[in-house]
Parts: sequence; C-alpha cells; structure tokens
Amino acid sequence: MNVELVSIGDELLLGYTIDTNATFFARAAAELGIRVVRRSTVGDTAGEIADAVREALDRTGGVITSGGLGPTADDLTKASIAELFDRGLALDEGIWEALQARWKARKWPGEIPLANRTQALVPVGATVLTNRHGSAPGIWLEDPEGRWVAMLPGVPREFRGMTTDELLPRLTARMAATGASGLVVRSRTLRTTGIAESAIADALGKLSKDPMGVALAFLPGWEGVDLRLTVTDLPAEVADAQLQIAANALRARVGPWIYGEDETDLAGLVLDALRAMHRRAAVAESCTGGMLGMRLSAIPGSSDVFAGGIISYDNEVKVRHLGVRESTLRAHGAVSEETAREMATGARTRLGVDVGIGVTGIAGPSGGTPEKPVGTVWVAVDVLGNVQASRISSVGDRAEVRQRGTQAALALLLRALETR
Amino acid sequence: MNVELVSIGDELLLGYTIDTNATFFARAAAELGIRVVRRSTVGDTAGEIADAVREALDRTGGVITSGGLGPTADDLTKASIAELFDRGLALDEGIWEALQARWKARKWPGEIPLANRTQALVPVGATVLTNRHGSAPGIWLEDPEGRWVAMLPGVPREFRGMTTDELLPRLTARMAATGASGLVVRSRTLRTTGIAESAIADALGKLSKDPMGVALAFLPGWEGVDLRLTVTDLPAEVADAQLQIAANALRARVGPWIYGEDETDLAGLVLDALRAMHRRAAVAESCTGGMLGMRLSAIPGSSDVFAGGIISYDNEVKVRHLGVRESTLRAHGAVSEETAREMATGARTRLGVDVGIGVTGIAGPSGGTPEKPVGTVWVAVDVLGNVQASRISSVGDRAEVRQRGTQAALALLLRALETR
Repeated sequence: MNVELVSIGDELLLGYTIDTNATFFARAAAELGIRVVRRSTVGDTAGEIADAVREALDRTGGVITSGGLGPTADDLTKASIAELFDRGLALDEGIWEALQARWKARKWPGEIPLANRTQALVPVGATVLTNRHGSAPGIWLEDPEGRWVAMLPGVPREFRGMTTDELLPRLTARMAATGASGLVVRSRTLRTTGIAESAIADALGKLSKDPMGVALAFLPGWEGVDLRLTVTDLPAEVADAQLQIAANALRARVGPWIYGEDETDLAGLVLDALRAMHRRAAVAESCTGGMLGMRLSAIPGSSDVFAGGIISYDNEVKVRHLGVRESTLRAHGAVSEETAREMATGARTRLGVDVGIGVTGIAGPSGGTPEKPVGTVWVAVDVLGNVQASRISSVGDRAEVRQRGTQAALALLLRALETR
Repeated sequence: MNVELVSIGDELLLGYTIDTNATFFARAAAELGIRVVRRSTVGDTAGEIADAVREALDRTGGVITSGGLGPTADDLTKASIAELFDRGLALDEGIWEALQARWKARKWPGEIPLANRTQALVPVGATVLTNRHGSAPGIWLEDPEGRWVAMLPGVPREFRGMTTDELLPRLTARMAATGASGLVVRSRTLRTTGIAESAIADALGKLSKDPMGVALAFLPGWEGVDLRLTVTDLPAEVADAQLQIAANALRARVGPWIYGEDETDLAGLVLDALRAMHRRAAVAESCTGGMLGMRLSAIPGSSDVFAGGIISYDNEVKVRHLGVRESTLRAHGAVSEETAREMATGARTRLGVDVGIGVTGIAGPSGGTPEKPVGTVWVAVDVLGNVQASRISSVGDRAEVRQRGTQAALALLLRALETR
C-alpha cells in the first residue's frame, strides 16, 4: 500500500518546528508494509492545502495529513479538504459535548470559548477518529472511489497516539481486505554506550559493511552509538530471521557494549536491576543538576527503588548535605574522582538506601582548565559500601556533556549491579 | 522570492532520519525575504526526483534540493535533474583532482574507488558550488528562462555550510538583480504560560485573526502557548514596525500571561530576577524528580544564584531532608498545597538560601484519584518566608505533566519575584 503524507503549518515551512510526525508515521507504517512514497509540507493556506492533498491523492489514492485541526482561525485543514471532496461541514454533537465536558473537568474559569466549537465541525459523511490524547478529533474522509484522507492533529503526542490507536488498525484492515503484498521493511537497533563509533567499526571489521547482507547504519548520539540493521521488501518471517542472524553476528563482536535494543532506556534497565536485587538508590548530582534523578523518575513505577537525592550544585551543599569533606574539595577539587566517590557514598548513607550515584563535572562553556577541560565528568557508584568511579571526556555543548555524564553514570551502575 | 525545497533520500521517507536541512534553510532564507512555499520529500528514485523537481519548478521557478549527491548507486539527483534540463553529464577535471587529493590526504588505503568518479560528473553548462565541508560538490543549474535548481549534499553539516557560503549570497545577488530585494519575512513570538489556547483566542477576540494585518499562529506546547506574529514581503523597517504594533495589541489583551519573546527560556528569566535581587534559590522536587533543578542548571553561569536542592521522591526524604511534617502528609497527602508549601520552605531553610521552590504532583500513568486525578500538580514558592502556592491540572503523558509542572513552578516564582 502506497500513501503520502501532507504536513500542514506555517511554522513547519518557516523552520520554527521540526516535523517529527512524518518520521514517526513512516517508521510505524513501514513495519506494516505501508510505503510513504512522498511527503509534502505546506503552509496554513486553504489553496495550498487543497492543492497538495489533491496532487497526493492523484498519485496514491491515500493521504495522511497532520496539523491544522485546532480551534483558531489559522486551522484550515478540515474546511479545505471538505471542499476538495465537495462536502459541507456540520456540527458533531458528540464531539461538542466531549469538548464541553473536557473544559469543565479541567476547572478552567468561565464558559468554553466559542472558538472551540470549530473543533466539533466535521465534513458531512466523514468518520470521526477518537483522540484520547487531546481535544481535536481526527477525521477519516473517503470518496465513493475509495480515495481517502486521514486528518490527524499536529501536536506530536496526539499524532502519535492517534496513529497507533486509530489509523494503523484501520490501514491494516484495509490492506487485508485488498490483499496487498505483505512485504515489509523491518529493522532492529542494538544500543551501545561507552565506545566510540570508530572503535565499533574496528571491532566489527568486515561486518561493519552490510553484515550477512543486512544494511547497517551507525547512529551516534549522546546515549551512545546505536547500530541499526534494516531489511527491506521481504516477507515478515524472512525479515525477522535475517535480522536475528545479523544481530547475533554483531553481538559476537561488540556484545559487552550493547545494553539493549530499539527504544530501551538505560535508566529502565537500572531500575529493573535494582528491583531484582531488592535495592534502593539515591543520587548526588553536581553538573547534571537533577538530570539523573529526572531520568530515573521519568519511568513509571520508579518510586519503589528510587528514593530521591541531593542536587549539590553548590560546594557547600556537597559538604553539608552529602558529607563530602572540605579537605577533599581543597586537595582534589569539586571535579575529581575523590569528590565523586564521596558524593556517591553521601547519597547512599544520607538518604538511607543501598546504592548511591554521584556525578560531578565541568559542563562548560567556561570553567575548563588544561588538566580538567570542559567535558570532564567523574561518575561514581556506591553499592553497599563498594565504590567504583569512572572518568568521561565528552565533546559537545553544555547540554550534551550533561546528557553523556548522566548516561555514563547509569552505565557504570548497571555494570556494577550486574557483576555483583 | 518564492522557492521550494526537495529533500531526497529513502532514509527520510522511511523515517530513519529527521530532515533538519529544510528547517535550517527556511529560517535562514526567511530573514532575507526568501519564502519557502512548499517542501517535498522523495526517495532515491530517478523518476520521483524528476517529477518532484519539475512540479516545484512549475510553481516557483526556483528549487533547492538536498541529498543524493554521494558516490554510490543510490545517488541519483544530478542525473535525474540533468535529464530534466536536457543536459548530459561531463567529468569536471577540477573536482576529480580535488577528490583524488582528498583521498590521499586522508591516507586511506589503495587507489580512490571508481565510484567516487561519479561525484566529479557535472551537468553540461552547470556551475559548481564549492563544498568546503565535505567531498560532494554542489551544483547550480539554470535554464535560458532563468529557472534554476541548486543541488546541495544531504549531510547536515555540509548542507548548512554550503547554504551559508554559496547559496544565500547567490540568492541575495539574484534578488538584487531582479529588484526583489529588500522585502523580508520576519516574525516575533510572544510566549505565554498558564493560559489555554482557546482562552487566549477568546481574550483576543477579533485580534486572534490577523491582528493589525499581521499573520498570527498559536503554537501550544508544554512550555505554554506561543503566539507567533509573521509579516511577509515587506521592507525590513515596515516589517518591524508592523510587528511592533501587532505585539502591542496582543500585549494589551494577554500581557499578564506573556513571559518573554522568541527563544526566551523561563528558567533564564528566573535566574536573572534572582540575580537582580541578589537572592539565591534551591528546589524541592517530588514528581519532577530533578527536572526543575535541571532546567535551572541548564543555563551557563547559574551557580551564582542556584544552590541545588533535594529530590524528595520518597516521603521519608520529604520528612527527613525537608522538614515536611508527618502530620501534614497524613492529613493532606503528599500531593497537596500544604505539602508543597512545606517543601518550598524546607528547600529554603535547609539549603540556607533566600528562595525555595516546591513541586509535588501525580505524573501518572497510575496513582490518580477522583479528587486528585493524574496531572494534578501543586507548586509553591517561599521567598524570604513569604509562601505562595498554585495548583495545575495538566493533560498529557507522564513527561508532559512533569514538564508543565516544572514550567508552572518557574512561572509562579517569576511572578512572586516581580511583584515584590
């Protein structure tokens, strides 16, 4: 099945927003054997929207739009596509009641604004796609020849939720009904951390180029280097088997650096490991300023093993609330192995838990010295009194140094927990 | 001047790569009065590339492509566009020598692969755009009627460098020659927080549609709703004056909700306000788990006014490290105005600073009750013993509830500091 995407919004054309919806849809669709053959982006102009959708329909017969479904005057998607299909717009009482209920539930003051009423207008004969992630419902509009447009909201959370809940099941059913090919594009990503892209390439040798006939992409980022394996236009079972063989080959060479696959979050693995050992952890953060705690608490249900911690941005907080010795700070500095170790131990003992994690570094842009340049981060973990530390030298801006430091602390802890 | 962008690459259509080139070009071009009226993305297929470029040329007469200039078999941009212009391809000796020299300089083993020779092929009569950032040169191809295509590499670093070095100067000169110069697209964004999109629309009334003839876009996100004003095709001075008039009109209606303009970060404003008052702050975070500290410490130089804080994810940490009373937790619960207030005061007194900020809430997905549904967040600030609190009801997933709670805490503090 071939489809096109039309993304709608002046902010996309002006470069104020990056279009992540198109990326999300394309990946999810490829898994099902649905091919996006072209993407277009147009502004909030009725004529432009109608032109782009008409051209896309002429090429493929199936179009997904994102954006332009909000309550304000610049939201023109429904009206321009309804016109393209020669349909009027009518108020959908169900949507209007849901919008009013939503307004009341959020205890906003006053009556629901009339502007919201436009969100309840639906092209005559269209199917409403329920939005459980926001206020603007989606619309499925189809003509007697079976040409269709699915209109989804542009807010990424809503677009993603509705793609998963409403759109993909509908497209899957449609493909089954029309007997489409069943050839899929599928991929698997092996996630590494703590090893450079070129070192992985060296370790893989010839396997770094299309291992076992499977395409391999190196995707470096602050979480580490992801290794993405992709096969295209194969029956699903053959695709999965080929990916398995290639993944095994990579694991044989760089297995120790691989912490998970696909969307796996290192923080989630740390929480799982703590849970399995019935241990609780706390953090002591300097340069990361709360980012490590944020990563751990981002995962639902983390409270059983994550107690909290101390953000010791100021050295006085390191001394008073973590018990870092003033002599340590004087002799070695706030960014040092010794301070990181005492921070980890302080987090463990002061918070009364089993495991402490300490991070201290120079995030930049200023504050670097020849011995401790910007990007120097010390991480330490204290597991029941057993302390380990590691130094990272990151390149990148302030945000990246903090992200890499956080990731390194989690990697060190995971390894320490696994080797116990 | 109107142009279109055509991004070329299977990886874009498959969703493996996010197209940041288009965003970069659009923003840089708008400042010069060049308008991107449509963007298209096609795969590595000669017919698709030629179709998309021809359609775009028919609409605007000027097209920038990115991608498909590499040395491998799937790089088809030059060949398909040369054919569209009825031109052959010829070897450019200068480029070929430069590629060979580059190969030698990088000490790669063996002779330069013949595949690289395709990178030295240029459509007859085209102008070569020098690439100082990588190996693939760009191409400028123009027909006798003045319709043109600029082909740039897809690697973002190379695309950006060549846009700045080669493309924008050329387009500026062209605009000057055709008398189109001097007209710009310019925008200003007013950032609001704590008010719903539809409530802003109501408050603005008629001003919500093209206030004073200026285009207005509503951009909701977790930081709040941004109001972006844009004027197009005006001389720079007129553009700025029109934006000023429209911004004033919006400020008259929703001024109290506007915290800044354009890229302004609320955390930065909080730090500035603290600095101006010679006050230092500390945080006490429950549901946000460190996110508030992360936001404040993300800004370089924050250490003079941000001391750190306590991540009191666990109630025991609230009691032991922040002095929240057990009776408060029993009577009102961890997510309550009373607990938020005691957390703010605890952050202030325990860290020995002037200002404390407390955040406690139910981030979900579980843990909600009818009285305190998921998304309920209490924020409180203690400024020198003067405590204020505010309740937020967010929709959205766990990440968004935390982000909105963090933003609300910063907004409450900024207001408290400003009204002192």
